[in-house]
Amino acid sequence: MTDNRIFNFNAGPAALPLKVLEEVKASFLDFEGTGMSIVEISHRSAAFDTVINDAVERTRRLLKLDDSFHVLFLQGGASLQFPMIPMNFLSGDRTADYVNTGTWSTKAAKEAEILGKKIRVAASSEDKNFSYIPENIRFNNEAEYVHITSNNTIKGTQWRKFPDTGGIPIVADMSSDIMSRPLDMEKFGLIYAGAQKNIGPSGVCMVIIKKDFLDRTKDEQLPSMLRYRTFADKNSMYNTPPCFGVYTIGLVLKWLEEEMGGLEEMERFNREKAGLLYDFIDSSDFYLGTAEKDSRSLMNVTFRLCEESLEGEFIKQAQEKGLGGLKGHRSVGGCRASIYNAATREGVQALLKFMENFEKENKT
Amino acid sequence: MTDNRIFNFNAGPAALPLKVLEEVKASFLDFEGTGMSIVEISHRSAAFDTVINDAVERTRRLLKLDDSFHVLFLQGGASLQFPMIPMNFLSGDRTADYVNTGTWSTKAAKEAEILGKKIRVAASSEDKNFSYIPENIRFNNEAEYVHITSNNTIKGTQWRKFPDTGGIPIVADMSSDIMSRPLDMEKFGLIYAGAQKNIGPSGVCMVIIKKDFLDRTKDEQLPSMLRYRTFADKNSMYNTPPCFGVYTIGLVLKWLEEEMGGLEEMERFNREKAGLLYDFIDSSDFYLGTAEKDSRSLMNVTFRLCEESLEGEFIKQAQEKGLGGLKGHRSVGGCRASIYNAATREGVQALLKFMENFEKENKT
Repeated sequence: MTDNRIFNFNAGPAALPLKVLEEVKASFLDFEGTGMSIVEISHRSAAFDTVINDAVERTRRLLKLDDSFHVLFLQGGASLQFPMIPMNFLSGDRTADYVNTGTWSTKAAKEAEILGKKIRVAASSEDKNFSYIPENIRFNNEAEYVHITSNNTIKGTQWRKFPDTGGIPIVADMSSDIMSRPLDMEKFGLIYAGAQKNIGPSGVCMVIIKKDFLDRTKDEQLPSMLRYRTFADKNSMYNTPPCFGVYTIGLVLKWLEEEMGGLEEMERFNREKAGLLYDFIDSSDFYLGTAEKDSRSLMNVTFRLCEESLEGEFIKQAQEKGLGGLKGHRSVGGCRASIYNAATREGVQALLKFMENFEKENKT
Repeated sequence: MTDNRIFNFNAGPAALPLKVLEEVKASFLDFEGTGMSIVEISHRSAAFDTVINDAVERTRRLLKLDDSFHVLFLQGGASLQFPMIPMNFLSGDRTADYVNTGTWSTKAAKEAEILGKKIRVAASSEDKNFSYIPENIRFNNEAEYVHITSNNTIKGTQWRKFPDTGGIPIVADMSSDIMSRPLDMEKFGLIYAGAQKNIGPSGVCMVIIKKDFLDRTKDEQLPSMLRYRTFADKNSMYNTPPCFGVYTIGLVLKWLEEEMGGLEEMERFNREKAGLLYDFIDSSDFYLGTAEKDSRSLMNVTFRLCEESLEGEFIKQAQEKGLGGLKGHRSVGGCRASIYNAATREGVQALLKFMENFEKENKT
């Protein structure tokens, strides 16, 4: 902890690297010698061009993207992507496969259905309360895409290995694990991520689209703001972009490159942090992990207390000790430690220590 | 000027009150004793509830709104409102009237047309290069709404008095003059405003809807994120809102109430600032105002130099003297001083002095 900062285990909006926050603060009244705040500069200025192009280039370097991908910044969060994807890619009789691994997957499919699009749920883990990631799925080879949610924030599961789709492009909601590990982007047609978990503040959605996948879109009847091509053609600046968000994402990506050493190193560190918590939970019979072991998320560690009635007290005492955001999602209850990229080793160790002490004091 | 801040005449994103920027900066690492930055707190927390409710209540007080209005914060800017309005309010055979007073009005109508909606352009000022606001318009009394753009940022015109629509609700894009003057809200069904000119950073769009107007919507076939009811039902938090933007808007509204004394005072000051510039332009034959006098905007003062070839030098020298953003919109050229609420008297006086000197040095 620095000064009166807490250890923040919020699921999103979530902790950002302190170094990034300090840089935002330091330059807030005069961005790069412009004499203006970053929130006051024109998005048509050379200064902002540098900001957005830097964020795009850092994304390309981190994810090893060549020119066959667009890197875009949209608004409306992942929730607006849910309808935009079928609107752009499922015209007429086209169909897509969806894998249902929890709340957000369900919502993504539902928005396609509201639009009357022909989609199929190819696999679901609803039978076991979404505690695992389905395997050996048979996809419809007529599908335009296979939609997955790469990490399930609420249930604490994560695709550790992406499915074999037989060449059908994967469209993935990566809101809660974007930039937490390297990706083999060849499998993907489109990935999207609300920024507010791993890469920035809320209000920006990163969208990466393979150009040949975008070429399949039929969007002539769509409003300009709901076409991916509008953003691809204008470097995300058809209208005023969420400038502060794009700027902050750029700083987070700089931190990822320059402080954390890129995505291989980031993944190694994320494995280490999650490993500390899961090993402790597995060694205890006071805490119970809720996700199946081989589907566990490196980002959201979900657990219950063997006596569920103690959970309220657990969360309250943790908060008092400067460990915030440990309450599980309101739809499922329990406890959850969200340990995205910016979570520190120090924070995880403080949480472990608290969990050990709480167990000692409350074990009957 | 404070330290190395410039006088910022950008059209948007634009200058914000220095006091607001200083408050954002001061609390950026620890928001209200939470031990987190405003960009790290959960939108489901009590702390953020206070933030968004405060912004809503201040909006209500400033615009004298009773409970018959919703105050919402959306994403996607005014540009996403262009299609959302006809999607929500023009189902089936319903029709609407649009008044075309420039680029943004044209775009609003175009997005309705892309959707195949039945709209009519009831009046246009295109015949005189959008240099005036049409009067004595005859509206179709079958229209669900009359769409106008209250202030035309590019052409420098503004509705000084809103049209008599015979009771048809007005839907107004107020992106560039929201909160610059009191409004008689009884005439309006819906007003919307991208925040980045008068009330905050880019990435948030304020939407105010009269409840009985919202009740007319037929939105069952629309994706959740494109329905106004989704946001009205959830106090703008169906999904993660643009928290930093909402927070900053709240601070700007606080400044409006507590420092500027509300919208009557704000309008008086805006008239004073614009008056200084227009009086000078009218007294000179070196500078030429481009909008007709009774349609002139209090927000965007557009002008040309009698010798247009001097405009590049004018803008360059102004920039060197710390007067930024005076270039006209790329689609029309010329010069433009955007003097939104946050523009200071000191800034306007510095601009006047520069204009006087530039005239003396360059008049032939």
